[in-house]
Amino acid sequence: MPYINIKVTDEGVTAEQKKALIRGTTELMVKVLNKTPNTTFVVIDEVNTDNWGIGYEQVTEIRGK
Amino acid sequence: MPYINIKVTDEGVTAEQKKALIRGTTELMVKVLNKTPNTTFVVIDEVNTDNWGIGYEQVTEIRGK
Amino acid sequence: MPYINIKVTDEGVTAEQKKALIRGTTELMVKVLNKTPNTTFVVIDEVNTDNWGIGYEQVTEIRGK
Amino acid sequence: MPYINIKVTDEGVTAEQKKALIRGTTELMVKVLNKTPNTTFVVIDEVNTDNWGIGYEQVTEIRGK
Amino acid sequence: MPYINIKVTDEGVTAEQKKALIRGTTELMVKVLNKTPNTTFVVIDEVNTDNWGIGYEQVTEIRGK
Amino acid sequence: MPYINIKVTDEGVTAEQKKALIRGTTELMVKVLNKTPNTTFVVIDEVNTDNWGIGYEQVTEIRGK
Repeated sequence: MPYINIKVTDEGVTAEQKKALIRGTTELMVKVLNKTPNTTFVVIDEVNTDNWGIGYEQVTEIRGK
Repeated sequence: MPYINIKVTDEGVTAEQKKALIRGTTELMVKVLNKTPNTTFVVIDEVNTDNWGIGYEQVTEIRGK
Repeated sequence: MPYINIKVTDEGVTAEQKKALIRGTTELMVKVLNKTPNTTFVVIDEVNTDNWGIGYEQVTEIRGK
Repeated sequence: MPYINIKVTDEGVTAEQKKALIRGTTELMVKVLNKTPNTTFVVIDEVNTDNWGIGYEQVTEIRGK
Repeated sequence: MPYINIKVTDEGVTAEQKKALIRGTTELMVKVLNKTPNTTFVVIDEVNTDNWGIGYEQVTEIRGK
Repeated sequence: MPYINIKVTDEGVTAEQKKALIRGTTELMVKVLNKTPNTTFVVIDEVNTDNWGIGYEQVTEIRGK
């Protein structure tokens, strides 16, 4: 039943990393909460660095320094 | 006032299907909760199949079997 | 695979209405997108009217007029 | 049309502060994006400090130091 | 600690406007709730007008009138 | 920078389990994506079983069988 949404900046997350995030998050739900993998959703959102702000600035600006 | 977010995999949802989802969801809010259509938001997010995991696997992997 | 999140104000949504929202939304995913009911999640969030704003005002304020 | 969701810890956000957040956010959408206030939603979620983690710890743990 | 998610239609939001939204939202959290800018996240989601519905219609349809 | 939202039903998630979810998720971001723990947010939402539907039914109904 868990639904897990992972939001990260779109800075080159590879297919392998996505698989690792999905496996790791699902495994955590199984181990900690005894949830069923087949009804555990993991959704990864990749956000443009122009669209993510922290400390008043866009990540694009922060990366540019 | 309702805000409804529909997350589905980006597996070819057509414009007509999106219209049907928006109409159907709005109609449901009107019929069940007597909400006002003009302040009922429906937002559809289409998620890459690499980015959606279920049962430890990416939907891309599941579809590939 | 769909995940649908319905956000409404916490103005007395009954158990029957919640069942109707869950059934209706799931049915819509099946009919429009041919999705599988057993992997279709519907999550209803009920938001305090102090915490929902529209047109500069809290719903609490709007209701109070 | 904008939908803005503000998630903060439930550490005593007052009704006046909620009003200020709703007004300020709506005003920002109007000034920056020329949006219509009557179709601008602001939803505030207050999250228990046990349920918010940063730097490996719950906010409850951080506050307790 | 705040996490603010701004969802708007993808109708040409400029880099400057995104900066203004990030600055303004962060400033609001600092002024109203005394939050720390370096742990205040602002994430902007730009949604295709086909994927946003209001009053039974897609924004694409509404704009086309 | 990651923001992770974990939605589960409110079926007695203990403080210890919440700590384990926060630690495990943060550790996953560090190991897989080399992210900074102090700017990694984990937010856990506990949803009433009346408010979570799967396969046309509320979790409350499913649990009652």
